[in-house]
Amino acid sequence: MITSSNNAKVKQVVQWQTKAKERRKDHVFLAEGVRMCEEAPVKSVREVYLTEELEQKLRRNAQNGDTAFWDKLQQTGYETVSPEVFAKMADTQTPQGILTVLEQPSYDLTQLLEQPEPLFLILENLQDPGNLGTMIRTGEGAGITGVIMNQQTVDIFNPKTIRATMGSIFRVPFVYVPELSPVLTQMHEKGIHTYAAHLKGQKYYDSFSFREPTAFLIGNEGNGLTKEISDQAGQYLKIPMEGKVESLNASIAAALLMYEAHRQRNL
Amino acid sequence: MITSSNNAKVKQVVQWQTKAKERRKDHVFLAEGVRMCEEAPVKSVREVYLTEELEQKLRRNAQNGDTAFWDKLQQTGYETVSPEVFAKMADTQTPQGILTVLEQPSYDLTQLLEQPEPLFLILENLQDPGNLGTMIRTGEGAGITGVIMNQQTVDIFNPKTIRATMGSIFRVPFVYVPELSPVLTQMHEKGIHTYAAHLKGQKYYDSFSFREPTAFLIGNEGNGLTKEISDQAGQYLKIPMEGKVESLNASIAAALLMYEAHRQRNL
Repeated sequence: MITSSNNAKVKQVVQWQTKAKERRKDHVFLAEGVRMCEEAPVKSVREVYLTEELEQKLRRNAQNGDTAFWDKLQQTGYETVSPEVFAKMADTQTPQGILTVLEQPSYDLTQLLEQPEPLFLILENLQDPGNLGTMIRTGEGAGITGVIMNQQTVDIFNPKTIRATMGSIFRVPFVYVPELSPVLTQMHEKGIHTYAAHLKGQKYYDSFSFREPTAFLIGNEGNGLTKEISDQAGQYLKIPMEGKVESLNASIAAALLMYEAHRQRNL
Repeated sequence: MITSSNNAKVKQVVQWQTKAKERRKDHVFLAEGVRMCEEAPVKSVREVYLTEELEQKLRRNAQNGDTAFWDKLQQTGYETVSPEVFAKMADTQTPQGILTVLEQPSYDLTQLLEQPEPLFLILENLQDPGNLGTMIRTGEGAGITGVIMNQQTVDIFNPKTIRATMGSIFRVPFVYVPELSPVLTQMHEKGIHTYAAHLKGQKYYDSFSFREPTAFLIGNEGNGLTKEISDQAGQYLKIPMEGKVESLNASIAAALLMYEAHRQRNL
């Protein structure tokens, strides 16, 4: 059992927890909680840390017949740490006592664009990690085929983003690209229709057909899409808003669009 | 100009910023930023604090013809504070230099229930201040007539909630009640249909008619609705979810339901 915060592994986890650059260098990310570890693909798990208390609980569960997760931990291997050390490693204030270090998944843009019935989310300069995680979670629910982000978008491996995905990080393909503009050009060539929620939009979002190959463009929380990118969008749409509301939260707007596509595709 | 953090007013604002109990006692809440102050009803404004830098900028704007906000500040009155004092008073990390102290609005449940074409959000034990604020903002956009919350729901005057409402706090009526159960009984007596998103739901949300008087029940982020309240719901509905998604973020689920009602009511 690791009982010292000066342990090299502990120090390394803290680096990964707090620094996107460190995660990128080592190609890893962290996921906290039982559920995230349960849903993690075994082949992506590099390390698992848990408290003795949780280890004992999981062992009892296994003895009572609930063996699946226990068996997985034997496969992945794990190390126990003291509660104090765990508190140091964890990003959450009330940690569940298990932290998984995972290989960052990576996807290929060309393959992503080749999938049948494309339904993409394209994110430009999104800054809120919780918003991004929520979009990934909602996106899986709505059946999107992938998320494409520019490099100024917040790090998808930010602990807050990972938590907000509730496991969808393991299942929704995503790619960061240096520039969105060439991707939009590629999409248009492939017959994927691109839509931007925009003040210039004349038609409400539910009057378009999203049964065709579709991509929704979502911009920065405060400033929306840049002119360069919104100029390139195939069509503008608007979301109706009552009262004095001028815009919706980015993850709400994305959800309404993705679920409208889901609704149309399942009529 | 206030230059000392020991100033009694500054200390009081910090209390209001950090303690729901203090806000409740004095029946006030705080709103940061130019936009929130612009949208605040003049008669609700008790105090305004701003930095000299912002004061000068607003004065210049007024001299250049942009007088509306400047005139409002003359009406409400304001005090300038040093940047250091302002940083102390502000909840945000990059404050805009203006903070408004407002009277808490209060609404009457009976009047709320008497409004025409009711569309309510009923929240039980919601805990995330950002989620609540986002629901208020989305709710105004979707045209809801009010939000009813039990007392275990997070404080709507929490600074994070206020910020997330983007001004909708001034326009969406809301009530806290000791118990939701009698409210549901009252609603049923008045012919308001209540719906809970629930695993037992057999029909998708878009197959119900929300043109009738409607209320959506939304529960705690982690645990959903309590059995007591979901048992009392008029009908169960489900939101379709692809992949391995078991639930959506509470503010996303609420948005899909409210905007489906909006869509049906505007066909």
